[in-house]
Amino acid sequence: MPVPRQRRLRGGIDLGGTKIEAIVVDQSYSVLGRARGPTPTAGGPEEVATAMAAVMREAAIAASVDAAALTGVGVGSPGKVDQATGAVAGARNLPGWNGSFALGPTLEQLLDTQVALGNDVEVATNAELVLGAGRPYQSLLGVNWGTGVGGGIVIGRKLWIGRGDAGEIGHTVVRQGGHRCTCGRRGCVEAYAGRAAMEIQARKLHGSGKQTALFEIMRERKRDRLTSSIWQRALEAGDRVAARLIDDAVSALGAGIASAINLLDVEAVIIGGGLGVRLGAPYVERIVAAMAPHLFVSDRPPHVHLSGLGDLSGALGATLIAPKRGRAAHVAPADAPS
Amino acid sequence: MPVPRQRRLRGGIDLGGTKIEAIVVDQSYSVLGRARGPTPTAGGPEEVATAMAAVMREAAIAASVDAAALTGVGVGSPGKVDQATGAVAGARNLPGWNGSFALGPTLEQLLDTQVALGNDVEVATNAELVLGAGRPYQSLLGVNWGTGVGGGIVIGRKLWIGRGDAGEIGHTVVRQGGHRCTCGRRGCVEAYAGRAAMEIQARKLHGSGKQTALFEIMRERKRDRLTSSIWQRALEAGDRVAARLIDDAVSALGAGIASAINLLDVEAVIIGGGLGVRLGAPYVERIVAAMAPHLFVSDRPPHVHLSGLGDLSGALGATLIAPKRGRAAHVAPADAPS
Repeated sequence: MPVPRQRRLRGGIDLGGTKIEAIVVDQSYSVLGRARGPTPTAGGPEEVATAMAAVMREAAIAASVDAAALTGVGVGSPGKVDQATGAVAGARNLPGWNGSFALGPTLEQLLDTQVALGNDVEVATNAELVLGAGRPYQSLLGVNWGTGVGGGIVIGRKLWIGRGDAGEIGHTVVRQGGHRCTCGRRGCVEAYAGRAAMEIQARKLHGSGKQTALFEIMRERKRDRLTSSIWQRALEAGDRVAARLIDDAVSALGAGIASAINLLDVEAVIIGGGLGVRLGAPYVERIVAAMAPHLFVSDRPPHVHLSGLGDLSGALGATLIAPKRGRAAHVAPADAPS
Repeated sequence: MPVPRQRRLRGGIDLGGTKIEAIVVDQSYSVLGRARGPTPTAGGPEEVATAMAAVMREAAIAASVDAAALTGVGVGSPGKVDQATGAVAGARNLPGWNGSFALGPTLEQLLDTQVALGNDVEVATNAELVLGAGRPYQSLLGVNWGTGVGGGIVIGRKLWIGRGDAGEIGHTVVRQGGHRCTCGRRGCVEAYAGRAAMEIQARKLHGSGKQTALFEIMRERKRDRLTSSIWQRALEAGDRVAARLIDDAVSALGAGIASAINLLDVEAVIIGGGLGVRLGAPYVERIVAAMAPHLFVSDRPPHVHLSGLGDLSGALGATLIAPKRGRAAHVAPADAPS
């Protein structure tokens, strides 16, 4: 018997360096349930997978559905994703995840449904292209300004992934011999603009006696790291250390994105990610201003937009890759792929 | 009457910031004649067009053919090329060429044959793709290391030109707030690696008392600028100023190309251009070494090749866009495009 139409719900999980976001959508991508939890900062991949399954189950409950009844769950994951085996390797912004871990199969067991994996920034870029700010464009660059700085390239309305790893705009070198990046290299955009790298700099400045409210706000809000909302509060309070580090971040993003435009000349740039979405339009305007002096064709800058899907671009993008027909065994012949 | 098959020869002109190279090829792209002349350093676009026509005629004579008997001539030009009108604008490495000039129509009159124009780096990249080192690849980045630093992107064996201006790898920012580039911006790859920018730096260092043989060699060889062969001679003689400036150039190229690979993840990089071809394989190896510390996926670097067509990639690429059927009036109905 075909799976009833009203049961054709899918899940999407966005695994970030700071938080896990899960949603349940119907066939028209309306969000029926959502949930969010912090990404574990200790342990290893197993702990992360357990936390992901818990957040997904919570979103399913919010949508009044059992997770096992979803036709499938899509996951946007950092690191190198092997779509065939469901393994994720080198997700360096996650705890103890330097090797490879079978994230897909583990989640399938925990959730009792099919799971498909994709690269986090690629799925988010695809979500903007299909459902968000990228809809009018043939070519664009998605920039994910969060714990790290990732990117996705769209050419001819298709994701361009190169040999599998295209889009690493966070590792464009903007200052030869500059700051050490969290990737170990020097002078990358992410060394200035990644939330993780900014936190390292803030701790250094704080440790060397510079006054900042960043860590006070962190303690008040019972957090163990400087989340995007903590940065936002500190900036609103006129914190000088926060302002200086954000200035450097905006400047590095401007130079890196302008360099990418000089090379690719795509129609649009879409800025998302935890920091991008939290700081919002005024900071997109600041990035546009920081790009301007570096644009080779200066009289025809690209369109630059804030993510149209906000916090949900990653999770919505994950639902776009979620299995849509349920387990093969549950699919009646009439409903099988033609 | 159809044009006789043996007369189906085409011309190609590569207009560089330092020299003009012209060739005549047959249908299998064998070079039957070639000539070369310096690019005028004074005057304006008219003078450049006159010099181009003279070099083209010389190449035709070497191929025992009259320029007017060529089915057409292709031109690879710097600046912004309007293929429909044959106008070239903003070729800033050429004398007095800040505005727009009808290069195509002017050459058609001077040479009495059809002329088609293309962007210099795009035609050179296409030549490498079709006839040279790029033949095995689906995706690549062509880098033209010459008076300026240009680039061409190939994706799915097709040139990607974005909104018309993709490929400007020379204007990737590698040092925020760094040297002033010849484009007026700061910290671009070209500010360190372009022959024109390197000459400005050499004159500064020479003027401030640094010992260098560069300008002596220039006078001996009766040149009015530091050509690629002058740089090569100075390097071979152990000139310290030349070595230091080339070190900076290699380092900037390494950072810029690695950033482009992090973003695009293409299979191969092909290095050509006046300096690239003149300095050759040992310097390609040095660029590969300078890229290494910046490659995000460090265990799978792209293939990096020296141009397979050497000095002729620009001119051969120009012949690929040359009109192949002669003037419409000379073409019999049986030979007209179907």
